[in-house]
Amino acid sequence: MDQRVSLITLGVEDLKRSRSFYDQLGWHGQEVEETVFFQAGGSAVVLWSREKLAADCGISDEASGGFDGVTLAHNVRSTTEVDDILAVAERAGARITRPASRTFYGGYAGVFLDPDGHAWEVAHNPGFELGEDGSLILPDFGASE
Amino acid sequence: MDQRVSLITLGVEDLKRSRSFYDQLGWHGQEVEETVFFQAGGSAVVLWSREKLAADCGISDEASGGFDGVTLAHNVRSTTEVDDILAVAERAGARITRPASRTFYGGYAGVFLDPDGHAWEVAHNPGFELGEDGSLILPDFGASE
Repeated sequence: MDQRVSLITLGVEDLKRSRSFYDQLGWHGQEVEETVFFQAGGSAVVLWSREKLAADCGISDEASGGFDGVTLAHNVRSTTEVDDILAVAERAGARITRPASRTFYGGYAGVFLDPDGHAWEVAHNPGFELGEDGSLILPDFGASE
Repeated sequence: MDQRVSLITLGVEDLKRSRSFYDQLGWHGQEVEETVFFQAGGSAVVLWSREKLAADCGISDEASGGFDGVTLAHNVRSTTEVDDILAVAERAGARITRPASRTFYGGYAGVFLDPDGHAWEVAHNPGFELGEDGSLILPDFGASE
C-alpha cells in the first residue's frame, strides 16, 4: 500500500450549508450527485452526506457529534496567514476552538471547526517546508524509521 | 485559504499498536516525541495520541468510539490491488467493514478500519485518474462550480 491519501471525505448534515462554508473560505468545488469535490493538491476533499458515508463504509453512526478523532491541518507560510484564515473562517461561521497562539514546537497555530465539527488546524510551522505548490515535505527528523 | 491539506492527524489510543499496523501495510514513518509522521504525497499522515489531539484542538472527546465522520480513501490502479491491500490490512488486524465489491459509480472498493476505527476505503475508480506519483486528479464533471 503506497503512502498516499487520495480523498478525504467529510461527512456533512447539510450539503448546501457546508458547501457555502467552504465557498466562503475561497474554495472552488464541483457538485455532482449531492457530492462536492474539491481538488486539494494531489488529493481531493469531498463533502458527502454523513449518513450515506457511514452506510457506505459499513459503519453504524451512533456516537456522532463528538470529536472526529481526526484533524486536518492547513499549513501556511506566515503567522499573518494563520490569523487571516482564522478570521475568514470565523466570519463564515466556524467555531474557533483554539485561538491562534504560539505552539510547543515553535510554530503558531489555531483551530476552527467547520459546520459539522470537523477540525482544521491552521498552522505556521517553520520546521515544515512547503513547496511552491503548497506540498508539505517532512524534514528528516533523524529519527527511527 | 488555498485548497490543500498539509497533514491528516489520526488520533490513536496506543501509538505502538498503530505504528505496527501501518508498518504492516508497508508504510515507513519517522517517530518523534511520541508522534509518527508518514510522508503521503504532498501531505503527511500523522499518528498522535487521541487524547492529546483533542486537547490540542480545544475539543472535548466525550463521544469517542463511533464513526469518525471522516473517511480516507486510497485509490489504486486495478481491482486486484484493492483485493491485495484489503488482504494485507486484514492480516495486519484491520476490521473489514465492507468487503470489496462493485460500487454504484462503476468502480470496485472495500473499506477497512485501522486499530482505532479510522476508516480507509480502498478503491479502484476508473473515472478518477491517478498521476505517475499517485496524485489524484479530479475529472471535469461538467458540473456547477
